Amino acid sequence: MGMTMTQKILAHAARLDHVEAGQLIEANLDLVLGNDITTPVAIDVMDGFQKQQVFDKDKIALVMDHFIPNKDIKSAEHCKQVREFSKKYDITNYFDVGEMGIEHALLPERGLVVAGDIVIGADSHTCTYGALGAFSTGVGSTDMAAGMATGKAWFKVPSAIKVVLKGKKNKWVSGKDVILHLIGEIGVDGALYKSLEFTGEGVADLSMDDRLTIANMAIEAGGKNGIFPVDDVTVAYMKEHSTKPYTVYEADADAEYERTIEIDLSTLKSTVSFPHLPENTKTIGSFDEVKVDQSVIGSCTNGRIQDLREAAEILKGRKVANDVRCIIIPATQKIYLQALREGLLEIFIEAGAVVSTPTCGPCLGGYMGILADGERCISTTNRNFVGRMGHINSEVYLASPAVAAASAVTGHISDPSELGL
Amino acid sequence: MGMTMTQKILAHAARLDHVEAGQLIEANLDLVLGNDITTPVAIDVMDGFQKQQVFDKDKIALVMDHFIPNKDIKSAEHCKQVREFSKKYDITNYFDVGEMGIEHALLPERGLVVAGDIVIGADSHTCTYGALGAFSTGVGSTDMAAGMATGKAWFKVPSAIKVVLKGKKNKWVSGKDVILHLIGEIGVDGALYKSLEFTGEGVADLSMDDRLTIANMAIEAGGKNGIFPVDDVTVAYMKEHSTKPYTVYEADADAEYERTIEIDLSTLKSTVSFPHLPENTKTIGSFDEVKVDQSVIGSCTNGRIQDLREAAEILKGRKVANDVRCIIIPATQKIYLQALREGLLEIFIEAGAVVSTPTCGPCLGGYMGILADGERCISTTNRNFVGRMGHINSEVYLASPAVAAASAVTGHISDPSELGL
Repeated sequence: MGMTMTQKILAHAARLDHVEAGQLIEANLDLVLGNDITTPVAIDVMDGFQKQQVFDKDKIALVMDHFIPNKDIKSAEHCKQVREFSKKYDITNYFDVGEMGIEHALLPERGLVVAGDIVIGADSHTCTYGALGAFSTGVGSTDMAAGMATGKAWFKVPSAIKVVLKGKKNKWVSGKDVILHLIGEIGVDGALYKSLEFTGEGVADLSMDDRLTIANMAIEAGGKNGIFPVDDVTVAYMKEHSTKPYTVYEADADAEYERTIEIDLSTLKSTVSFPHLPENTKTIGSFDEVKVDQSVIGSCTNGRIQDLREAAEILKGRKVANDVRCIIIPATQKIYLQALREGLLEIFIEAGAVVSTPTCGPCLGGYMGILADGERCISTTNRNFVGRMGHINSEVYLASPAVAAASAVTGHISDPSELGL
Repeated sequence: MGMTMTQKILAHAARLDHVEAGQLIEANLDLVLGNDITTPVAIDVMDGFQKQQVFDKDKIALVMDHFIPNKDIKSAEHCKQVREFSKKYDITNYFDVGEMGIEHALLPERGLVVAGDIVIGADSHTCTYGALGAFSTGVGSTDMAAGMATGKAWFKVPSAIKVVLKGKKNKWVSGKDVILHLIGEIGVDGALYKSLEFTGEGVADLSMDDRLTIANMAIEAGGKNGIFPVDDVTVAYMKEHSTKPYTVYEADADAEYERTIEIDLSTLKSTVSFPHLPENTKTIGSFDEVKVDQSVIGSCTNGRIQDLREAAEILKGRKVANDVRCIIIPATQKIYLQALREGLLEIFIEAGAVVSTPTCGPCLGGYMGILADGERCISTTNRNFVGRMGHINSEVYLASPAVAAASAVTGHISDPSELGL
């Protein structure tokens, strides 16, 4: 029996000729990631290890992003702890205020992940890098600590679901609609501990930003990872951003998949996940008016340049509705600068939106747009669990940047067609 | 005995021909101000009033600025309460995310305060508007509530200190250095319940932004208010920003002052307030190296366009030091947009600073740059009390935007001369 793309990467990293679903392996790691919430816990764990060391100072990335610039004393203390740890071990890829960004936007941009890599990160959306043909997955802080010390991690080899993409998206449909549609189809546990392997001629229709968004939310279907084949788009992206050597793995023709799902991109519509699960999807036009108090455009899911361009195309020459707070958060300093130079930030401010410095902020109820009792937010983020963005009686609706921008203008959940776009 | 400028404004507002220091008067108010911290308290107080009303829906300004976009559920609930109050009473000047700014930068910019006005605000830095020749002062939330309901407030007429300015500032000396120098001279209670009346030929050397910074910090010397004469600069500013009629009051030639202080602007140097009081001033060059972890450029004191221009002139083509987080906060959306269009934001990002959406944020330890144990911040804000910006063992050093920007580059408290500027 052949191997899936994921299984091939894992086999190579475990120095095995063959692995199969369910097998326990120990793999060498190309990168270990932590953020300002999870790294302090990992450092505390490491303090209990017999041998105090990091396996490779160049293969650890510590990104301060959830609560920075620091929102309170506790988060300031956490960042300080990580800063001191990074100095002690001379960690190459420590990212702080000014040179930073949201981890999952930052690492690909800095060329720290390429095809064929094995990456673990103490953050559930570490699965993002599957867009580049890497195996990447979220782990707890204890695994992160072990990974930092040894450069190795144990995995149970996942089985896989094959997602065959065909056709071309319509205007205003983006990667976010693809992944929300898929989660709506299979549910939030539909891919539990499985790989979501995307394939088919439709992949070519997806930009790297689309793919990063899709892989990012594999975890929202319970997936161990989400992964895309390496094509011209991938190679061009890696050449632009990285000098690291990469390896292309392809699924065997006779690889086993537990299930195959076909998505015709041409039939997809703007999709919204209603409270309180990402699987509660509805398409625009299929529900009654839902007024919103806030619109958030940003996060590791949708804070990239393509996302900001789409939002700007909609907000240009328009005004955010009176009763709506529209908060736009470029995911990295580089994206912020690019958006500024392209005139996008000017469009946002003229429209009455505010532009935040890069941060995870409101996505996880951190800061920069927390909701009060009864408030509703349309958001390009990745989770709409109860109380995710604030008060337990607040509501989060997940959608694409196009929908979030259009809704900011109309004051209720809309797609750009309502604005004649 | 003649009256001071402040006394003349108060006499007029109390419909009296003459007032003198110590007299209790009831004055009509031209504007009552509150923010997202103080207004909820005032609303609760108003709930206890027999008659539920506001005196004039056009003469109340409610500015959400300290914790927005909301940093947590509590601040979100507070803003929601004020938002609902504003709708109930159809308050004209309610400012929320997207159309907002820090109150004391926003109100002059929107033309809501002009010369001769009487303004109370439930925020200690309400004294800022003295720069325009208005009488303005900070009050508690109870007085704000009474002001909103009746349009009147009681005052004890203040005595005054005359501050005679002469000469011209050197390059890189700004209004911030003037006021820090003055507070260093007279102490944090040197003007307790007194007016600080600025006068002299040196006033002409001060831009409106300089004057706003100086009047803003009158309270840091204990002043009831700080006030400037109305000159061509004032009139030009009001014509640009406001359609409100204004009245020019001048101190009588025989007005009584408790004390006269002369400041020769040409002798002033870059001045820094060391922890933990604004009166602990030293000039650059007179102290040993003080390393900093953070530089904050913003606040109601120094977040205006002139401040950002000065910071940009220093940061242009330079890099923020590796170990310093540099946080720049334009005070209003309009200033943000202007700074963007002038290319200042691009300079900041290229230098490795971050640019925040308008907020009071770190100044009061709110969010957006809180300090950990032992950390030091050079800051253009107005208070350096123990724990003001975070941990009780952190330190805040107050200075001008020029010093904060230069220090961000060098990594220790510096003025631009250290960079050859």
